[in-house]
Amino acid sequence: MKFTIQRDKLITSVQDVMKAISSRTAIPILTGMKIEAKANGITLTGSDSDISIQSFIPAEEDGIVHVEDIEVGNIVLQARYFPDIVRKLPEKTVEITTDENLKITIRSGKAEFNLNGQDAEEYPQLPMLQTDESFEIPTDLLKSLIKQTVFAVSTMETRPILTGVKLNFSNERLSFTATDSHRLASREIPVQQSQFDFPSVVVPGKSLNELNKILSDTEDPVEISVTNNQVLFRTKHVYFISRLLDGNYPETSRLIPEESKTVIHAKTKDLLNTIDRASLLAKEDRNNVVRLETKGSDLIEITSNSPEVGRVVEEMTIQSIEGEDLKISFSSKYMLDALKAIENEEVKIEFTGAMRPFIIRPENNDPILQLILPVRTY
Amino acid sequence: MKFTIQRDKLITSVQDVMKAISSRTAIPILTGMKIEAKANGITLTGSDSDISIQSFIPAEEDGIVHVEDIEVGNIVLQARYFPDIVRKLPEKTVEITTDENLKITIRSGKAEFNLNGQDAEEYPQLPMLQTDESFEIPTDLLKSLIKQTVFAVSTMETRPILTGVKLNFSNERLSFTATDSHRLASREIPVQQSQFDFPSVVVPGKSLNELNKILSDTEDPVEISVTNNQVLFRTKHVYFISRLLDGNYPETSRLIPEESKTVIHAKTKDLLNTIDRASLLAKEDRNNVVRLETKGSDLIEITSNSPEVGRVVEEMTIQSIEGEDLKISFSSKYMLDALKAIENEEVKIEFTGAMRPFIIRPENNDPILQLILPVRTY
Repeated sequence: MKFTIQRDKLITSVQDVMKAISSRTAIPILTGMKIEAKANGITLTGSDSDISIQSFIPAEEDGIVHVEDIEVGNIVLQARYFPDIVRKLPEKTVEITTDENLKITIRSGKAEFNLNGQDAEEYPQLPMLQTDESFEIPTDLLKSLIKQTVFAVSTMETRPILTGVKLNFSNERLSFTATDSHRLASREIPVQQSQFDFPSVVVPGKSLNELNKILSDTEDPVEISVTNNQVLFRTKHVYFISRLLDGNYPETSRLIPEESKTVIHAKTKDLLNTIDRASLLAKEDRNNVVRLETKGSDLIEITSNSPEVGRVVEEMTIQSIEGEDLKISFSSKYMLDALKAIENEEVKIEFTGAMRPFIIRPENNDPILQLILPVRTY
Repeated sequence: MKFTIQRDKLITSVQDVMKAISSRTAIPILTGMKIEAKANGITLTGSDSDISIQSFIPAEEDGIVHVEDIEVGNIVLQARYFPDIVRKLPEKTVEITTDENLKITIRSGKAEFNLNGQDAEEYPQLPMLQTDESFEIPTDLLKSLIKQTVFAVSTMETRPILTGVKLNFSNERLSFTATDSHRLASREIPVQQSQFDFPSVVVPGKSLNELNKILSDTEDPVEISVTNNQVLFRTKHVYFISRLLDGNYPETSRLIPEESKTVIHAKTKDLLNTIDRASLLAKEDRNNVVRLETKGSDLIEITSNSPEVGRVVEEMTIQSIEGEDLKISFSSKYMLDALKAIENEEVKIEFTGAMRPFIIRPENNDPILQLILPVRTY
């Protein structure tokens, strides 16, 4: 194998693929990165068996040459040193060659690295998703969907299914739902492709977090396809495959109250800052609890009490309050997470009494829904 | 106590003083920050008994009012929450009041924090340095002195005296010296004040690191004074007091070879980058060892070998080589630290054979000296 490649292109691809490579893996060869050179370009592969990432660098793209002097071949190299080596090479191009003894030589300017490689035949085959059933959404929209829901997955392994985000695609609508049983985050978007539906699948939250890091903020499409136990996200040059979680995801729709007794309308940023201040002392407390009390038609009071440290109180003028008076306590962390996920200047919060879950939505009626269970302090 | 203060001024002072406050201290009141209000301004004090920092915010400075409505008094408040509270307050001014029950109220806009305070009488008195013997140097020069030497202090508590930097002021020259017995860093500057000398004192490296964080990159003077067991660094509004280390600092001058057998002249940045690349594989090795070999009159070869991972080799054209041929091995980490401390484009390295310490100096003859003991590999 031999090729000469633009260092910048190689850096980006290596960084993407590294997201799937763990130094702690039961399969030693997976600590390595597979490099394949073909006439049309170079493919890098990394995997921790839960997530697999492939990045392709075309030999030529839009008339720009990225890779030259390609001799077909493949190798697996120790991933641990590779990103730093590539990043610190002195010149803009890098030559990578291998010999019959699985030795890899990386040359740039006068710097030469000789590394021990492994036989690419020993690297596990990536599962190939055999499905024509796929749909596309813009990359930046997928990133939003992830960011607005994934924080609500459970971090406890007691109910493994809740460590994932439920994806549902039916009736031309794609929804993401996550819950740790104390709060729930969901969002739905329309997708203009109706050839097929897929049943609900649950993608590990960790996979979606890694995917979000790799995806760039563009409107270029991501193709999503699903089989029984894998999901594939494909952009122009990156394949991202994650296993799915087994098990039944709980039915969440019945958690969502259909009526409300108190509704408040507020500026998202102002409310976020006020809750954030109240949470400063709440930190000490196990539950980060803050209290909200309505005062008349456009005033709320946010308080928090930590007997050893002190007390914080802040009155906040909001847009309006409808319905019954309310005193309610909740986790400030959950509220801050939810408010950050609302991508709108104004927010509507619907309460059904101090003991019932409440719902946070953007005022513009985007189908984003954040639900939080209150804390009983009264 | 009562006063209204500009939030920005308060943030800066609180951040400075926090550098001395540790949550792990044997004296509980030292987890707090002392606030003193006097007619001319506010003084904040923090201490972990090794380091004490005082920051003064004048009521008025250069015609600008920083503090208003001052009622004289003092209090100690829990330092842990204070920086976040001040940083997140909604308005540009902050009102702080205390009552006779040691309750502190912090108000800004509609946000109000009520915190439990402690009696300032219980806060230890800062040691007052009784000395007229002090001298001044520009702040940015003091920061350079610290950065160019402090990295070489020992991190091992086996010889506590080596965890400090030796300061010496005599014959109108101030010198900083640090060594961990494997390498040495020193710099000397002229000081135009000759009223007095002080004997060598040893300041803990940790203190100098914290001091460096607080000092800003200005030419404004820092006043330095020393007594038997304390050193005081004083800028316009900040007092920084550190204890000194007890014990005899080893005589280091005899470590420094007076003759050399091989001298190389190189571009500092190029050499640094080459050593950095060679160190990428050397990391695995306990000693980060790289090897340098001269090749003729203007070429050196830097290599590193890590049997399990591979080998790196780089030839580098340098300005010139004088004297005998040389093969020498050394810690890449020490070399990188030393080269970073050389604030000059060109560097001169003087060797006295493969087994003897070598010296790195800037080509401009600034009295900066970095000494490294080689590693025996031949």
